[in-house]
Amino acid sequence: MTREDCVARDERDPLGLLRNAFDLPEGVIYLDGNSLGARPKAALARATDVVAQEWGRDLIKSWNTAGWFDMPRRLGDMLAPLIGAAAGEVVVTDTTSLNLFKALAAAVKLQASSARRVIVTERSNFPTDIYMAQGLASWLERGYTVRLVDSVDEIPAAVDQDCAVLMLTHVNYRTGYQHDMAALSAHARAQGALTVWDLAHSAGAVPVDLHAAGADFAVGCTYKYLNGGPGAPAFIWVPQRHQAAFVHPLSGWWGHAAPFDMAPDFAPCSGIGRALCGTQPVVSLAMVECGLDIFARTSMQDIRAKSLELTDLFIELVESRCDGHPLELVTPREHARRGSHVSFTHPHGYAVMQALIERGVIGDYREPAIMRFGFTPLYTGYADVWDAVAILKDILDGQAYDINTRRGAVT
Amino acid sequence: MTREDCVARDERDPLGLLRNAFDLPEGVIYLDGNSLGARPKAALARATDVVAQEWGRDLIKSWNTAGWFDMPRRLGDMLAPLIGAAAGEVVVTDTTSLNLFKALAAAVKLQASSARRVIVTERSNFPTDIYMAQGLASWLERGYTVRLVDSVDEIPAAVDQDCAVLMLTHVNYRTGYQHDMAALSAHARAQGALTVWDLAHSAGAVPVDLHAAGADFAVGCTYKYLNGGPGAPAFIWVPQRHQAAFVHPLSGWWGHAAPFDMAPDFAPCSGIGRALCGTQPVVSLAMVECGLDIFARTSMQDIRAKSLELTDLFIELVESRCDGHPLELVTPREHARRGSHVSFTHPHGYAVMQALIERGVIGDYREPAIMRFGFTPLYTGYADVWDAVAILKDILDGQAYDINTRRGAVT
Repeated sequence: MTREDCVARDERDPLGLLRNAFDLPEGVIYLDGNSLGARPKAALARATDVVAQEWGRDLIKSWNTAGWFDMPRRLGDMLAPLIGAAAGEVVVTDTTSLNLFKALAAAVKLQASSARRVIVTERSNFPTDIYMAQGLASWLERGYTVRLVDSVDEIPAAVDQDCAVLMLTHVNYRTGYQHDMAALSAHARAQGALTVWDLAHSAGAVPVDLHAAGADFAVGCTYKYLNGGPGAPAFIWVPQRHQAAFVHPLSGWWGHAAPFDMAPDFAPCSGIGRALCGTQPVVSLAMVECGLDIFARTSMQDIRAKSLELTDLFIELVESRCDGHPLELVTPREHARRGSHVSFTHPHGYAVMQALIERGVIGDYREPAIMRFGFTPLYTGYADVWDAVAILKDILDGQAYDINTRRGAVT
Repeated sequence: MTREDCVARDERDPLGLLRNAFDLPEGVIYLDGNSLGARPKAALARATDVVAQEWGRDLIKSWNTAGWFDMPRRLGDMLAPLIGAAAGEVVVTDTTSLNLFKALAAAVKLQASSARRVIVTERSNFPTDIYMAQGLASWLERGYTVRLVDSVDEIPAAVDQDCAVLMLTHVNYRTGYQHDMAALSAHARAQGALTVWDLAHSAGAVPVDLHAAGADFAVGCTYKYLNGGPGAPAFIWVPQRHQAAFVHPLSGWWGHAAPFDMAPDFAPCSGIGRALCGTQPVVSLAMVECGLDIFARTSMQDIRAKSLELTDLFIELVESRCDGHPLELVTPREHARRGSHVSFTHPHGYAVMQALIERGVIGDYREPAIMRFGFTPLYTGYADVWDAVAILKDILDGQAYDINTRRGAVT
């Protein structure tokens, strides 16, 4: 394997042309699209249009004429095929944290007639998911608790007769471990529990088929692999079979059956709209479409095939070329258990990552000692992988990192 | 009073120059800034910069280097002086509905040791406020209820020994009625109730002094009089004296004491940050600054003085020039009880408003039969008022409206 081989693979890559749909800075190898996706070129013109024309010229009319009010549903329908959802089952709205709260609240309510009072999740889940479950549980007054399991192997046994909801993030934000959604959903169902899946590191990264997997509810993020822009509104999936019983306490006017009748009692609309709450941030929401448009030009199967090649290549090159350095792979080697990022620990992981960033290889760091590298097949190539590893090797061989570098408050 | 008088008043108006800070379409008299504020000219360059540079070029680094992570607090500090809040007491985040939920939940929790289980509000309050209170109440399992009062006069008696929280919108969205915040807050406090004020139609419209009024919590909107852009994130005020006890169930990672430690248990940060929940929509959030910048060039006192002159003039001209038409003023004539919009009913209010919009006078319609006209002193002039009334008179005199016009699903 040589750099020329990588260049050759880029040249015959069917996704290679899609890189032109993105604006990427010169001299940067961006391996952090799992945290903030790169900017679709179209997003700039779209932002200009929303701000100058729709807001500036057409003003209040744009709620109708520019489709602002319908955007959460319209974007949800665009996103749906990427996660195996049907039209009318997804809205893009609010934040992942808040959508998770809605889904958990609805799931708990569906289980209220049983004695089930436990939400099961992993201690290694992304913290806000745990925090939102804790927040909900502490405000429900019938003794709800959040049970944290310490390993994947413990999940099946933890889903017992007390378990109301199994809440998991499909692909772990640190390790890149991918759960077997179908097997765990089937197990939960067999035990009488409902499932809530967080697709933050899955949507646009790995093929997801929520219906085939038998999942109950799902939420996720649009600003990572979907390239919707910084902090862009999140999504929530409620399958049609659960929609009539989908109730949650965040009952704002956008979820009302007739929001402009201004009636003094809440009556949820039918369908997925009842997952909406308040008025949405239009400019940020509009950017989401630019990211989704690019997915319409390929398939999750092609994306997945390239993702596995990129992550295989990265693992192979790091392990062969950086041999002798204290790097440890924490991401599964097994394809079926891997997401689209690769994590290695290093005793000076934070300092090494800072040195990489200085050299233009942008990944990120997560406690403890984890260097994360995201591989986004829409705009990352094989030669990028080669070059990133060459720079990593150079830094490690030369000890060209400052072990006194301190992690700041924000990463 | 002639049109020339109005033009002369515009010429000596100290706020007149600020109109140049806004991009307003030609041929439009925009009287709907109480629903969606006009676009500050600076917002286009800001949007371009956030999208092209901060997102596109600097990518993930911008969370630190462009101050994205701190934006809710920084914008909150900019907004604080407009509502009589101190620095460190306001964040710009999420939606008004969600912020109201947090404030209500925290207020109810503060009252939990008492027997108080009633949230008092007005039946005429903006519906989402009522819906969020109903949503919260229905999920609290100790018999909480929302009590709707039918008139302002009934509020004092409704704040009885069962009342935990008095939740009011300071300026009514339909009538423009402005509550006496200080008197009602004092009454609530004397009765042992807490107050939650919605400033959606107050912030940037009328002088508000939350501390002087003795209010307990407040929320509000940035996309109306503050000109933050369509659906821009809302704000929440928690005075320092309540911050340590401010707890709510929407406990996401942005409200954590150490969000990047990724600890598995929620621990709220000290200060106003605990009102935050999930990752915010950066592009929409960034626009809010452009609106707030303009307020730094004037004062709420000057804005209020002009607002009252504009609304006085509008009322006077409509009543004198459209005499004989079935128009009825529903906005208080008393200055202290008036916000910054004026509403008239007309039996064919919806049809007349559509005719006005066709002619370039953009107000809006609210059930039942109410035509709303918002007066935003930063970019509305006296001659605008004259011209708007002239067009209204022309439409009414000529019956130039189609009484078969049907209200659509969205306004």
